[in-house]
Amino acid sequence: MTYTVKEIAEALGAQALGASSIRISGVAEPSDAAEDHLALAMKPEYAEALPKGRARAALVWDGADWQALGLEAAIIAPRPRFAMSGLTALMDRGEGWGEGVHPSAIISDSAILSEGVSVGPLTVIGAGARIGKDTRIGPQATIGADAEIGEACLVREGVRIAARVRIGDRVVLNPGCAIGGDGFSFVTPDLSNVEAARATLGDQADTETQSYVRIHSLGSVRIGDDVEIGANTAIDRGTIRDTVVGNRTKIDNLCMIGHNVVIGNDTLLCGMVGIAGSTRIGSNVVLGGQVGVSDNIFVGDRVIAGGGTKIFTKTPAGRVILGNPAVKMETQMNINRNLRRLGRLFDDVAALKKSVSNTDQSD
Amino acid sequence: MTYTVKEIAEALGAQALGASSIRISGVAEPSDAAEDHLALAMKPEYAEALPKGRARAALVWDGADWQALGLEAAIIAPRPRFAMSGLTALMDRGEGWGEGVHPSAIISDSAILSEGVSVGPLTVIGAGARIGKDTRIGPQATIGADAEIGEACLVREGVRIAARVRIGDRVVLNPGCAIGGDGFSFVTPDLSNVEAARATLGDQADTETQSYVRIHSLGSVRIGDDVEIGANTAIDRGTIRDTVVGNRTKIDNLCMIGHNVVIGNDTLLCGMVGIAGSTRIGSNVVLGGQVGVSDNIFVGDRVIAGGGTKIFTKTPAGRVILGNPAVKMETQMNINRNLRRLGRLFDDVAALKKSVSNTDQSD
Amino acid sequence: MTYTVKEIAEALGAQALGASSIRISGVAEPSDAAEDHLALAMKPEYAEALPKGRARAALVWDGADWQALGLEAAIIAPRPRFAMSGLTALMDRGEGWGEGVHPSAIISDSAILSEGVSVGPLTVIGAGARIGKDTRIGPQATIGADAEIGEACLVREGVRIAARVRIGDRVVLNPGCAIGGDGFSFVTPDLSNVEAARATLGDQADTETQSYVRIHSLGSVRIGDDVEIGANTAIDRGTIRDTVVGNRTKIDNLCMIGHNVVIGNDTLLCGMVGIAGSTRIGSNVVLGGQVGVSDNIFVGDRVIAGGGTKIFTKTPAGRVILGNPAVKMETQMNINRNLRRLGRLFDDVAALKKSVSNTDQSD
Repeated sequence: MTYTVKEIAEALGAQALGASSIRISGVAEPSDAAEDHLALAMKPEYAEALPKGRARAALVWDGADWQALGLEAAIIAPRPRFAMSGLTALMDRGEGWGEGVHPSAIISDSAILSEGVSVGPLTVIGAGARIGKDTRIGPQATIGADAEIGEACLVREGVRIAARVRIGDRVVLNPGCAIGGDGFSFVTPDLSNVEAARATLGDQADTETQSYVRIHSLGSVRIGDDVEIGANTAIDRGTIRDTVVGNRTKIDNLCMIGHNVVIGNDTLLCGMVGIAGSTRIGSNVVLGGQVGVSDNIFVGDRVIAGGGTKIFTKTPAGRVILGNPAVKMETQMNINRNLRRLGRLFDDVAALKKSVSNTDQSD
Repeated sequence: MTYTVKEIAEALGAQALGASSIRISGVAEPSDAAEDHLALAMKPEYAEALPKGRARAALVWDGADWQALGLEAAIIAPRPRFAMSGLTALMDRGEGWGEGVHPSAIISDSAILSEGVSVGPLTVIGAGARIGKDTRIGPQATIGADAEIGEACLVREGVRIAARVRIGDRVVLNPGCAIGGDGFSFVTPDLSNVEAARATLGDQADTETQSYVRIHSLGSVRIGDDVEIGANTAIDRGTIRDTVVGNRTKIDNLCMIGHNVVIGNDTLLCGMVGIAGSTRIGSNVVLGGQVGVSDNIFVGDRVIAGGGTKIFTKTPAGRVILGNPAVKMETQMNINRNLRRLGRLFDDVAALKKSVSNTDQSD
Repeated sequence: MTYTVKEIAEALGAQALGASSIRISGVAEPSDAAEDHLALAMKPEYAEALPKGRARAALVWDGADWQALGLEAAIIAPRPRFAMSGLTALMDRGEGWGEGVHPSAIISDSAILSEGVSVGPLTVIGAGARIGKDTRIGPQATIGADAEIGEACLVREGVRIAARVRIGDRVVLNPGCAIGGDGFSFVTPDLSNVEAARATLGDQADTETQSYVRIHSLGSVRIGDDVEIGANTAIDRGTIRDTVVGNRTKIDNLCMIGHNVVIGNDTLLCGMVGIAGSTRIGSNVVLGGQVGVSDNIFVGDRVIAGGGTKIFTKTPAGRVILGNPAVKMETQMNINRNLRRLGRLFDDVAALKKSVSNTDQSD
């Protein structure tokens, strides 16, 4: 599949300049570009590498002197990074799974597949499951009993969707993600040593030990529209009500969303974020890689947490936080600076003690 | 499946009060409850929401004035959270996989399936594997050659159990967990730069580089009775002996248990905990979310580690720890408080220096 | 399969002493060894347990008085840990998958399988995929369209290899790893609140909120020779160019390699390491368990990072680092020591203030 520079610009709502009938078969970084590639020269520093490649056309920044860069054609986008969305969607070659329902898929007679659904080889779709229009399901996925998946979703290879999970429209589920595992919820016959430790913060040398019994998860998982969930991420069922992920929220690889968690809309969870049970995360939140959030707390709207932040307490809306334990980013920056010069402070205090002691003795 | 309030109370060993013949089809939080739901009003603050729902019966705390709450029937449990275990087990609707062995499963002729075993579609069971009575295996799971699984286990969709792994009775394995990956064990022909760095703690600018070769894992994994393992968790084979998980130990999602690790009984590992190779974890230990434990150390019985704790050294029994690196929780709380007021300490010392310098000059 | 002590020693390039015709069926730790086991007594402290087992032969350290240890035969290796590599390779019983292509595998007509390839039950191999000589693929794996796998690889159960991924020779892929998920790359129509926060580090209470749209991943993943990838690890596609893992690099379980990341040769990533998008990691690097690396930075050759280190900034070659944020290991050790005695420093300064105040008053 190839497109002219003009067709690409139109698809992006951008401006085509120069020889806009040049046919493009792919996109490339400037130094790797072949003659039929659109080079991505969205900043002057990227454009410097254009002579190393053979691109005749490029996506350039607003105001670029594209002819001086040796190009025959250019696409100008006011926010080129945003244009990348449309451009990459256009050029995506897909997974090559083919159309229709593969004969090796095991689909319950009571499952309902809407028009345009494709199902890969060796996928299992359980009793009562419903799959919306134009949803593509890859090979070896599992769709549990009575699960519902919306329209135009992409369910990649080996995805696990448990019984009764509900998923919105245009959701992307990456390989191996598991939606609907058992919540991690156990209870001891009497007050446990964790409950005691939370009360006292003290050591537990003398507590009697007990065994845990399982609280089954009766709730399920509900995922909104336009959500993306990363490879091998795990989202657990709620205990009584559902675990919920809001619309347009994006969750990266290897994240863990505990039972009863509720996440708002337009939130980003980067790789390896963990949210413990019953915590609520607001909308437009961004949690960096390896962030952890304790159970049963609330993280407000528009909170931004840097990578590795551990959030133990309620966080007000709009706060930008960092560190373990999480504090305001500015505070953490000060702490880090102070830690680096702490050795000198010890030296200063030692000198002061000596000096004051001398002063005292000289009195 | 419905139960009367009386039947539920009997199953829980609890007390039924009022119109105990009301039929219950599910459980719900008070505000979400329909007429045939048992509301979970185990604390006064939960009970406040009862008027928002339509529950006629509820699970309430000992001493609750259930009639004043507008209920027609109540179940009273001395420790309601413990009652949740029996209640949710009773109400669990299960995975809807159906009974028996699905004809699409690929089961070796030499595998032995005991009475009451069910096997989901497209599951593979290898040569010499043995599956105990009443164990339910979901779709698309793998049971390796000569693996043994006990009685009444639940093996969810896409679980991977490698060759020779042994699993006890009543074990729950969540979707995508992988038991029996290769241990991460490599060796260089000569002393490696890591071994050198451990000896010197110094920088490695001049070390000669080497390539690693693999030490194969000849051991397997042995898992006790009543264990639960979370979604996409990975437990590696031992190098020579087995990696071991004790009885009644519960492991959450996305945990990593390295080769040769031995974990005791009744231990809880919350989400994303990582235990490096050859480390031993005691019994009745609780490791919070994202805790990490170094290789070749020992964490004693009844240790409790808060979320995000990084344990680098041997930890005595009963200790309650927090932080990176782990210290006693109380110590970490003091450190955190001191860090927040560290800026003022720098100011104080600067002022003191000035003051003492003036004093000195005034002498 | 059994070997004589002599055969084993020859395979290891080591020296056999004593009754070297003793037949060995396995290896064991000294206390667990049966009569036909080779005991691993590579250090004097291991050898102490020999009397508890029944080994007649052992792998011992250079200079060991093996006859005094009660052995009839011994293998002496100058670096016994290195000998473990050859020894365990020899004794590996494998996965028991059988030979050839299982009839239940779904293999595209246009896929090319070289000589000696074996494919497990219910594995899917897509159109145009190419599998090199003697590569063994386990049950229920997915090989995407146009993917290439080299020679003598081991692809374990449930591995997901996406379309167009290229993998070298002798690569080991552990259960459930996912190579070729979608990169976590999203963009807002206007400058996002994260971009603003990175610029200001300030709170975001007043920012207008926006929704994210997806940038598709057009690149793929390229993995070198002799790489090992752990169970349930996820490696994402690049946006335009490929994500790259160099030769002989070993990646443990549950690691996350973001889009566009480039990792050098002979690097070790321990369990749960996360590398954010577009970051470059050098060669001969070692990142301990749960290390995190920010996006768009560079970690130089031979860097060693202790467990739990969070790397936010460019790290020069050869540096040994620790902590959150990462600093030189020696610096972190000093910081940790200073933190533990910080309480006393506060006390000292309070005493000094009092003393100086008294001095001032006495003037």
